[in-house]
Amino acid sequence: MAASETQVSFEIPKKHKAMVYDKPGSISTKIEEIETPEPGPGDVLVKLTHSGVCHSDMGVMENSWVLLPFPTQAGQIGGHEGIGLVVKLGPGSEHGRVKLGDRVGIKWIAYACGACLPCLEGKDGVCFNQKISGYYYPGTFQQYALAPANYVTPIPEDLKSEDAAPMLCAGVTSYSALRKSSAKSGQWVVIAGAGGGLGHLAVQIGSRGMALRIIGVDHGSKESLVKECGAEAFLDINKFDDTTLAEEIKNITGGLGASAVVVCTASNGAYSQALSFLRFGGTLVCVGMPEGESKPIANAYPAAMVGQELTIKGSAVGNQREVLEVLDMAARGIVKTRTRIEKMENLTEVFKEMSEGKMQGRVVLDLR
Amino acid sequence: MAASETQVSFEIPKKHKAMVYDKPGSISTKIEEIETPEPGPGDVLVKLTHSGVCHSDMGVMENSWVLLPFPTQAGQIGGHEGIGLVVKLGPGSEHGRVKLGDRVGIKWIAYACGACLPCLEGKDGVCFNQKISGYYYPGTFQQYALAPANYVTPIPEDLKSEDAAPMLCAGVTSYSALRKSSAKSGQWVVIAGAGGGLGHLAVQIGSRGMALRIIGVDHGSKESLVKECGAEAFLDINKFDDTTLAEEIKNITGGLGASAVVVCTASNGAYSQALSFLRFGGTLVCVGMPEGESKPIANAYPAAMVGQELTIKGSAVGNQREVLEVLDMAARGIVKTRTRIEKMENLTEVFKEMSEGKMQGRVVLDLR
Amino acid sequence: MAASETQVSFEIPKKHKAMVYDKPGSISTKIEEIETPEPGPGDVLVKLTHSGVCHSDMGVMENSWVLLPFPTQAGQIGGHEGIGLVVKLGPGSEHGRVKLGDRVGIKWIAYACGACLPCLEGKDGVCFNQKISGYYYPGTFQQYALAPANYVTPIPEDLKSEDAAPMLCAGVTSYSALRKSSAKSGQWVVIAGAGGGLGHLAVQIGSRGMALRIIGVDHGSKESLVKECGAEAFLDINKFDDTTLAEEIKNITGGLGASAVVVCTASNGAYSQALSFLRFGGTLVCVGMPEGESKPIANAYPAAMVGQELTIKGSAVGNQREVLEVLDMAARGIVKTRTRIEKMENLTEVFKEMSEGKMQGRVVLDLR
Amino acid sequence: MAASETQVSFEIPKKHKAMVYDKPGSISTKIEEIETPEPGPGDVLVKLTHSGVCHSDMGVMENSWVLLPFPTQAGQIGGHEGIGLVVKLGPGSEHGRVKLGDRVGIKWIAYACGACLPCLEGKDGVCFNQKISGYYYPGTFQQYALAPANYVTPIPEDLKSEDAAPMLCAGVTSYSALRKSSAKSGQWVVIAGAGGGLGHLAVQIGSRGMALRIIGVDHGSKESLVKECGAEAFLDINKFDDTTLAEEIKNITGGLGASAVVVCTASNGAYSQALSFLRFGGTLVCVGMPEGESKPIANAYPAAMVGQELTIKGSAVGNQREVLEVLDMAARGIVKTRTRIEKMENLTEVFKEMSEGKMQGRVVLDLR
Repeated sequence: MAASETQVSFEIPKKHKAMVYDKPGSISTKIEEIETPEPGPGDVLVKLTHSGVCHSDMGVMENSWVLLPFPTQAGQIGGHEGIGLVVKLGPGSEHGRVKLGDRVGIKWIAYACGACLPCLEGKDGVCFNQKISGYYYPGTFQQYALAPANYVTPIPEDLKSEDAAPMLCAGVTSYSALRKSSAKSGQWVVIAGAGGGLGHLAVQIGSRGMALRIIGVDHGSKESLVKECGAEAFLDINKFDDTTLAEEIKNITGGLGASAVVVCTASNGAYSQALSFLRFGGTLVCVGMPEGESKPIANAYPAAMVGQELTIKGSAVGNQREVLEVLDMAARGIVKTRTRIEKMENLTEVFKEMSEGKMQGRVVLDLR
Repeated sequence: MAASETQVSFEIPKKHKAMVYDKPGSISTKIEEIETPEPGPGDVLVKLTHSGVCHSDMGVMENSWVLLPFPTQAGQIGGHEGIGLVVKLGPGSEHGRVKLGDRVGIKWIAYACGACLPCLEGKDGVCFNQKISGYYYPGTFQQYALAPANYVTPIPEDLKSEDAAPMLCAGVTSYSALRKSSAKSGQWVVIAGAGGGLGHLAVQIGSRGMALRIIGVDHGSKESLVKECGAEAFLDINKFDDTTLAEEIKNITGGLGASAVVVCTASNGAYSQALSFLRFGGTLVCVGMPEGESKPIANAYPAAMVGQELTIKGSAVGNQREVLEVLDMAARGIVKTRTRIEKMENLTEVFKEMSEGKMQGRVVLDLR
Repeated sequence: MAASETQVSFEIPKKHKAMVYDKPGSISTKIEEIETPEPGPGDVLVKLTHSGVCHSDMGVMENSWVLLPFPTQAGQIGGHEGIGLVVKLGPGSEHGRVKLGDRVGIKWIAYACGACLPCLEGKDGVCFNQKISGYYYPGTFQQYALAPANYVTPIPEDLKSEDAAPMLCAGVTSYSALRKSSAKSGQWVVIAGAGGGLGHLAVQIGSRGMALRIIGVDHGSKESLVKECGAEAFLDINKFDDTTLAEEIKNITGGLGASAVVVCTASNGAYSQALSFLRFGGTLVCVGMPEGESKPIANAYPAAMVGQELTIKGSAVGNQREVLEVLDMAARGIVKTRTRIEKMENLTEVFKEMSEGKMQGRVVLDLR
Repeated sequence: MAASETQVSFEIPKKHKAMVYDKPGSISTKIEEIETPEPGPGDVLVKLTHSGVCHSDMGVMENSWVLLPFPTQAGQIGGHEGIGLVVKLGPGSEHGRVKLGDRVGIKWIAYACGACLPCLEGKDGVCFNQKISGYYYPGTFQQYALAPANYVTPIPEDLKSEDAAPMLCAGVTSYSALRKSSAKSGQWVVIAGAGGGLGHLAVQIGSRGMALRIIGVDHGSKESLVKECGAEAFLDINKFDDTTLAEEIKNITGGLGASAVVVCTASNGAYSQALSFLRFGGTLVCVGMPEGESKPIANAYPAAMVGQELTIKGSAVGNQREVLEVLDMAARGIVKTRTRIEKMENLTEVFKEMSEGKMQGRVVLDLR
């Protein structure tokens, strides 16, 4: 409120720096000076300071991400985990939920209409009129970006921007999947891919934020990370075959099996194992999306689903309410991404590292 | 209450007639005279007058039903939709929910323990200690049967026994699947196999009992039956291919797709179509269980599940509460099975007719 | 879509007629010519043809409505059940959910921000930034009104405007209350005040639209109306005292009591009876709000609530999704308000009739 | 399993010691030697080693407990938090969920039929055929007690009997109330009476077991206990009036108010404050039941309930599933009652101490 009273105003340059995909289909970004746009009706201009780099950005850049209908165009600015300050209000946004100087976030769903049936059911991720940040809509790998005044995400005061950024996509995706699992506090949940970008957040959110009992499954090298994140048990995928892995999960869970499995990894193998980890009435939540030739979930036989009354649910990115909730958890210190800060100019190197599978934790670009 | 006050008692013969599977693996039943048992602690003796004949009985007899772990033994008495009078109370059942003379039903789950975790969650169908009527437990194709005093199903006064019998399995299975679909009144639900034994009940229960809007899918010969049952639309599976069927469902539903699909038929083809009928956030409920070589649900790709936030649920037989609810619907005239009454001696012929796919509606045996 | 392609445009007058409250605190309206406004960013201009007249309008005009924090100001244009055509788009609303020529509705909540916590939970009625049509925001008793492009309600093609209007407040309020009751299809629900403006809609929606079993409670003169609306039973409040009324409801419901009671009338007496109508675990939904000196719900003793595990819920106006659902029911012929069409000039007489308790059904003003 | 294989058997005395209420209406118990009964059909005989002493026992003894329909009879054996070993199986319980030698618990609801509508809905506390331990059914203040084989509660191996006992009533009551509050992990819940017998368990279960954020309200002397139990904030009821208490709760919760209030104390004052602590859409859960002249919840005005869409719920003792869940929490060290062990002979002194309000924590009788 103080901000508007004192008539804060910001100097806005004519041009700003942006990282663009110059040859979509390959790993290639270049820096460009572009014109800083004016916010139109309902929009605000955000001066970005940080942006997370997500595996989906690479999918968009490489045209390999399975859900996108059209090829990415040259000149696309990627990025969808952006944090910055509101520096200019477009017409009609003066009385909205943001004021000049507010710190806000821009998410994968940069715009949801708020009026279609999915929006009215709280399913932003399937909004009929959605715009995706960094895909046919300028993303957050730049210093200034437009965003709808009513859809930007307020950032809690006590949370650092570099810690907030990954919550906007990886955090909320993990959190929403755990909520959709219907697992109640005190129940066992398996996180497949527990040491990965989504998985290590799911372990923290589940164990500390939702009082779930977490079993992490991943390669052995991730064991200490996964346990530090709060998993009660860790299973090294290389030490078990499908049958013994399911048996071990039964043992840990007192003979029952887990109430839910959240598959955070994009591996067909993880999906084909997952149903066998479940107790009667359990839920498999699909988050990771295998690339390449599609395969149905290998053990989703009707008779098996009926016999144990199992459920399989697909979970997209989570909605606005959920992102506020997970940011609150981050502000309370419950969940924290392993991050490394890089200059924006290094984006191509970051993608190469990601592509080679060498990435540890998440990179957040410093855009200043 | 009158019953116990006036000290009703029943004459119970030493022996009674039963139809047994004499050569499991084939269609073969024979009549036998067997000893009428004494009810033990917690049990009652029921003098059966009617029993429905279900497709699962044939599966048990032929050893072809996919969920049963052991081969059926010679001498097994089948049947699991039995109606009759309580004629004798075992020790400890005098103060239970039934009295001498009460009319009760015996279901597929003849006994659920009431104390295991599935029971405590209202999932009788996955009770760890369940006994299945007509499979390793004497069924209802006989004149007298034992049943647990606390698990038999009271039958509403105004409902004829031949109309009550099919509710005990087909009715409650259809009803429970519709409840699990999470479809709300006013929403569109597709019933695949709408003219079949389960399907035509699902259409009635859904449309008249739950105010759902039903689209029936089946062979063209079932159209008039399905519409009489209350479907707003009928689609002849032979007039469409998978793509045009999905399109037609989109048209009917105002462009959205259905909120749920309940697959009542045991066809892999029905399952592979079903996901394409759904709107965003929709639910496929698995009821029918294809026999023979198992196939996973053909289009259950993780990316497709995520992209539209779809759900797949397996639904087993429904619980005690649900059977009371569907019997109440039957007593109110909302749902009525197409039935034909046959003498118990004709059971083999009934199974042959069923096996040849000639069965119209459901057969109820008169056991008197 | 055709509309925008063919560049529909509308002639908009400089001035239009409006009915204003000239002496708030009393029943008094007068007609005025006022300037037709330009739609600002995000808004559209609606050429209204019909507006329902609601009891709450009278409460606003008379300054007697219990929930409003400030006295109504002279010159306020009332009305919140308006139907009309979108005739002009403000900046930024060109790509929204409405196009020029679309028929839309304006509700009690004329604007909800879509971004506050209540909005994110689907609770429009408690939006922190809500604007109320006809109270500190120009209402629908006029020929042209502004409304947010993303919050106006699309009207189904097959529904007449005079039938649509009352759905926007009375209809959705009744419907939302029934949903909040948690009563499932097949369960008994008592509507207290079943013959009133809200009540007779609740009876229709409940019985035909949601497959609930309805018991209507009201004065005897309303019996035929309530039964035509679909109630299975009607109880004349004058023929019973509190005890015998509760007993009669127990009888009708097979000894149990009702699963829910929705109090649609603004009577303290109705509230003090309501808890006694409930079965164990039942829910009392508060809709009607007694005026004058506030009294707590007379029988809401903690011990009684605990002993039968009862629930009491307050239900405000329903959200955008619910208004679409109830309009769909109206378009399908499931619910229809008893309406009488009056010229807008007659508004004072309409309020007088309402004030004297002589109103039968609902008045819809023809604003053309 | 070992137990039954090795044919464990127990020596059972002809007589055993019991504490009886010899003058109901006053605080008076005396020790008696009574005959040890034989378990009938479906029952088991439990050799009790421990029994918690609950405030409700005193209510039964003094005939002051508000929900009990009949006066307690002289000779009644009280107690309903009993732990012991199964030492004899009645007929028909040989194949049940317990075996000879199992350690089990006996709860307030000593018997629920498992077949009535409340039981089928998981509402044991309102079972139509319930028997209450220590009220018209011999309780657990004795060395041997009968109990239904299918309704006794298995005790986790790692949990001491004296720690298990209070979970059977106080623990499960607190836990069930928190579940019924619908508060989600990360939301704020106020516990009124946070330092009391139920309250201090609710604080532990809520904060550590369900990841709720707890605000404890009680007299200042309880502050350190309540904070040790996991409350994030404590408010001394003596330092605030009703208005400033509500304001302080708003401050703590970021201006919103709490998502739920659980009133664990039997104080009309606590109830009249509670609604003002809630945010929009919040839930007041009633657990404590004020004695003496009944008063309705003082601020439960329909208009207030509607205006903020509030809910009030009564919560009785939890069900079987919930008691297993809270015992699991106890076994995991999440919740622990402050207990003091006393000899059974000291029961009258224990009640006197309780009556004088001097009781710190819970007394568990050693019955050996």
